[in-house]
Amino acid sequence: MADRLADAAGQAALRHFRQRDIGLENKDRDGFDPVTRADREAEAAMRALLAAARPDDGILGEEEGAQTGRSGLTWVLDPIDGTRAFVAGAVSWGVLIALDAGDGPVMGLIDQPFTGERFRGGLGRAEHSHNGTTSPLGVRPCPDLAQATLMTTFPEVGTLAERARFDAVKARCRLTRYGLDCYAYALLALGQVDLVIEAGLAPYDIQAPIAVVEAAGGRITDWSGRPAHRGGRAVAAGDPRVHAQALEILAQI
Amino acid sequence: MADRLADAAGQAALRHFRQRDIGLENKDRDGFDPVTRADREAEAAMRALLAAARPDDGILGEEEGAQTGRSGLTWVLDPIDGTRAFVAGAVSWGVLIALDAGDGPVMGLIDQPFTGERFRGGLGRAEHSHNGTTSPLGVRPCPDLAQATLMTTFPEVGTLAERARFDAVKARCRLTRYGLDCYAYALLALGQVDLVIEAGLAPYDIQAPIAVVEAAGGRITDWSGRPAHRGGRAVAAGDPRVHAQALEILAQI
Repeated sequence: MADRLADAAGQAALRHFRQRDIGLENKDRDGFDPVTRADREAEAAMRALLAAARPDDGILGEEEGAQTGRSGLTWVLDPIDGTRAFVAGAVSWGVLIALDAGDGPVMGLIDQPFTGERFRGGLGRAEHSHNGTTSPLGVRPCPDLAQATLMTTFPEVGTLAERARFDAVKARCRLTRYGLDCYAYALLALGQVDLVIEAGLAPYDIQAPIAVVEAAGGRITDWSGRPAHRGGRAVAAGDPRVHAQALEILAQI
Repeated sequence: MADRLADAAGQAALRHFRQRDIGLENKDRDGFDPVTRADREAEAAMRALLAAARPDDGILGEEEGAQTGRSGLTWVLDPIDGTRAFVAGAVSWGVLIALDAGDGPVMGLIDQPFTGERFRGGLGRAEHSHNGTTSPLGVRPCPDLAQATLMTTFPEVGTLAERARFDAVKARCRLTRYGLDCYAYALLALGQVDLVIEAGLAPYDIQAPIAVVEAAGGRITDWSGRPAHRGGRAVAAGDPRVHAQALEILAQI
């Protein structure tokens, strides 16, 4: 089901990607929080499939909100995570799909339709597909922050207090990269980077990454070490040593 | 010739992309400036082709330096622009190839082999190829910084003084994205973003972007409005109004 949802959402999103008129609107009166026709059509495509195939499941989606179900299962959908990247033509955005059994995701999927990549985690799977080739996902070891590659979306992570904690971790890392959106978690699960730190997340931003990162052998929590699936602040690491070192700094908030 | 060079360099780079042992070395004693087997092999592959087909041309490459020619033409090569992105598995890196006739590039090419994209500019061409489909490149209009999407590689642009000027422009823009390397110039030429600002560049970082951006109808100079092909600070815009507004702020350095 998750693959069918991703196929439909990806097709809807790609129809608008890099087109001149994508129906861009700003959701934020005080800043710039874009939403496009692509976000809305991609979520609608997934909801239509779920209505037909899984009418008893709940849905939590970024664009149309929550719809309560009767099965105890909820599909948690972000049709385009990284809409800012999407509207700039960059390829770090992705379709996020997770299945929440009440206490967090039992499986999740990160899809980048332009590069043809899909990352699946949970229910016994931890795999990366690229243009038809599938290979296993797996985090890499990293003994210490001093050797770590850190990723995040914005240099302006969350509030000023959150940013100060982020900067304290960053100062200990070897390399920091920005602007990656959900693709950062995918690269962690691929064993390419060691640490992802974010704040200000919604449940639909983080549930699919949780499933993929955990299936790949990584650890992901909030900045206090508690479950992160309700959103807020997240820290994900491939190696538990790096997770513990980052948490020690981040928990001081 | 440029396409043959890009094919060879892209193949050499992709052989190592996301592999566990890529021969990572640090070129910077005080920080982290990575170089990999992929950078070296990609440049060597291009130099071997040029030695056979264009023995009278000069070469300026990031990894092996300058080789003087007799034809008055110099191939300016960055085998992997964005090695930091490359070692993190991200896809904003690219192969940069330019042909300098003595006073800057007469043509240039930006290639992203993982996404299958190639951007060509100069000698009558301004085109984008993606998985075999070729379409014209063209910048988009943007009347004012307040509507502009700005891109750069690092939030820590250049020196503190350079960063202060960058931040002053950023404060006027609608949206800023980071971490894009040469892909930022490609997106400008595609009409997806409006402004790219960088500092601390070498000639091989900027010559191919100059050719692609100018062929697409954009304007690219240093922060004083002078030619940027020798490296240093660069500002590229799709619309001359945005270029002028950014320059007014950046030139105060």
